[in-house]
Amino acid sequence: MIETPTPADPAEPEPTARRRGRPPRAESADTRDRILTVAREEFSERGYEKTSVRGIAKAAGVDSALVHHYFGTKEQVFEAAISVSFSAALHAPEAVAAGPLDGVGERLTRFVFGVWDNPATRAPLLAVLRSAVNNETAAAVFRRVIATQLLRRIAAQVDLPDAELRAELAAAQIVGTAMMRYVIKLEPLASADLEQIIARIAPVVQHHLTAR
Amino acid sequence: MIETPTPADPAEPEPTARRRGRPPRAESADTRDRILTVAREEFSERGYEKTSVRGIAKAAGVDSALVHHYFGTKEQVFEAAISVSFSAALHAPEAVAAGPLDGVGERLTRFVFGVWDNPATRAPLLAVLRSAVNNETAAAVFRRVIATQLLRRIAAQVDLPDAELRAELAAAQIVGTAMMRYVIKLEPLASADLEQIIARIAPVVQHHLTAR
Repeated sequence: MIETPTPADPAEPEPTARRRGRPPRAESADTRDRILTVAREEFSERGYEKTSVRGIAKAAGVDSALVHHYFGTKEQVFEAAISVSFSAALHAPEAVAAGPLDGVGERLTRFVFGVWDNPATRAPLLAVLRSAVNNETAAAVFRRVIATQLLRRIAAQVDLPDAELRAELAAAQIVGTAMMRYVIKLEPLASADLEQIIARIAPVVQHHLTAR
Repeated sequence: MIETPTPADPAEPEPTARRRGRPPRAESADTRDRILTVAREEFSERGYEKTSVRGIAKAAGVDSALVHHYFGTKEQVFEAAISVSFSAALHAPEAVAAGPLDGVGERLTRFVFGVWDNPATRAPLLAVLRSAVNNETAAAVFRRVIATQLLRRIAAQVDLPDAELRAELAAAQIVGTAMMRYVIKLEPLASADLEQIIARIAPVVQHHLTAR
């Protein structure tokens, strides 16, 4: 649990002068945040497989033991990193809750495409998606996060038989469209006006979630 | 354009004894097929970025120049490999054409999920998808293949305004569902009966393709 000195880096001076012993509480939060930021960068750049706790620790200027102390295994570091990367998207259940059920398709579609259409919030989603497509363990973590933090919460508000399957099929339409538009960049979809996409997708999302 | 001897491999004797000069026509087709098989394996195992024409040539026991002679650049080898990997899926336009337009949603959905649900035909699709998600050049090749060989042919049969966009949104629903089911393995979708999935997805595909 001892932080090791950061390797000399002229661009970035060491954040603290104290180096030995367990950090005090205020510094703990800073250090934890710093490790999480570095972890997201490492997972994003290298993907799940090639990222190591040792590499994260080194880049954050701390001992590997401190990374394990705050987050646990590499899998758990990845789960914490995903939750931050998805923080924008994880507000989707609130968008679903923010109005009557007959407008849920448009609210959910508009909300999620708002996240995908913004390059700043799209980049971390793409990084997570890449890791999940490439690695079974990363896929399992991704699955757990979106199931518990996203899909089940949406399903709970729908309150119909098969609500979870409904939420997954609605998500499949949105994620599939996002992949075609932002990753594969198929035309005319990639250049289509966002409002046109929302107008086409929202009724399908509504259908999946609420049709009897 | 000269084949080099295969490195000694006790498991697999050299396919031919003749080694010098341009191969005769019958052997050409065999060699071309062998290179393509090896290329698919290499792209599938290593992904687009880490596969090289030199590596493909070595694994196929031929000179790099022969790979270039038959296929062109690495990008063009990948395109040829994709076309083989997608050969099952590329029959989708025939499934679309094989009946009246009001049954197109079910025919297309049933056909494509038939390809995805079979592990033997799913594996090469997944390998291509991984490369496309990880690499821009691979994504561009993937885009070209599915646009020209799949989506435009389906769109041509729909014969409505925005037919290409319609085909892409229908494909997005199918591909998104396949990803959630076979890659991310979200439950209950991953264990759901295939007929149940088809019953849910087919009306949406029909809607995208033909609703006014």
